Amino acid sequence: MSTDKLSVTLSALADPTRRGILARLATGEATVKELAEPYEMSLAAVSKHLKVLEGAGLISRVKDAQYRPCRLEAGPMRDVAGWLEDYRKFWEASLDQLEIYLAELQKGDPGGSRN
Amino acid sequence: MSTDKLSVTLSALADPTRRGILARLATGEATVKELAEPYEMSLAAVSKHLKVLEGAGLISRVKDAQYRPCRLEAGPMRDVAGWLEDYRKFWEASLDQLEIYLAELQKGDPGGSRN
Repeated sequence: MSTDKLSVTLSALADPTRRGILARLATGEATVKELAEPYEMSLAAVSKHLKVLEGAGLISRVKDAQYRPCRLEAGPMRDVAGWLEDYRKFWEASLDQLEIYLAELQKGDPGGSRN
Repeated sequence: MSTDKLSVTLSALADPTRRGILARLATGEATVKELAEPYEMSLAAVSKHLKVLEGAGLISRVKDAQYRPCRLEAGPMRDVAGWLEDYRKFWEASLDQLEIYLAELQKGDPGGSRN
């Protein structure tokens, strides 16, 4: 059950190092060695993160290049964003309620309808 | 490192049962028993999922009510959507490239610039 594509993507994204790697790749292709530099981490540990990202289709490796640099593949992120859209009205509703509450506070009337 | 808020949210969402529970709560508050109904799962197993969702701030329990129904809290989803926004240009770019490729295919010219 937990091997559906959306779960695999979300699980791959649920790690700050992997999100850091994706942020770096958003600036352009990079080799494993370049990706490892900002982290106090072995190449093996970084490679393990890359395998998770590659398994989720979030990165690809450039073939026919000496160091097989990594490239960002944002397609799975689009699917997450698409899934989240169904919930947008809920978080926008809570923001609206917060704004109403803050407006009441500014009027010195935190209780609102109580007066 | 992996206990940052965004990782906790993404990890909580990386499970089809938990996403199913959120989809159910999007239609209104529900008790644990009601949430368990669609799943062949013990109340204890469902409660475990609810604890994960509650820990991530994705649901809250209604106090002062006999069965303490669960309620959707979409705030953490908004944070995920906000983080994804930085990558939108990448998935839109790949869609553009796909459209160009499909247009070439329709013209019977899959190689494009090769002719």
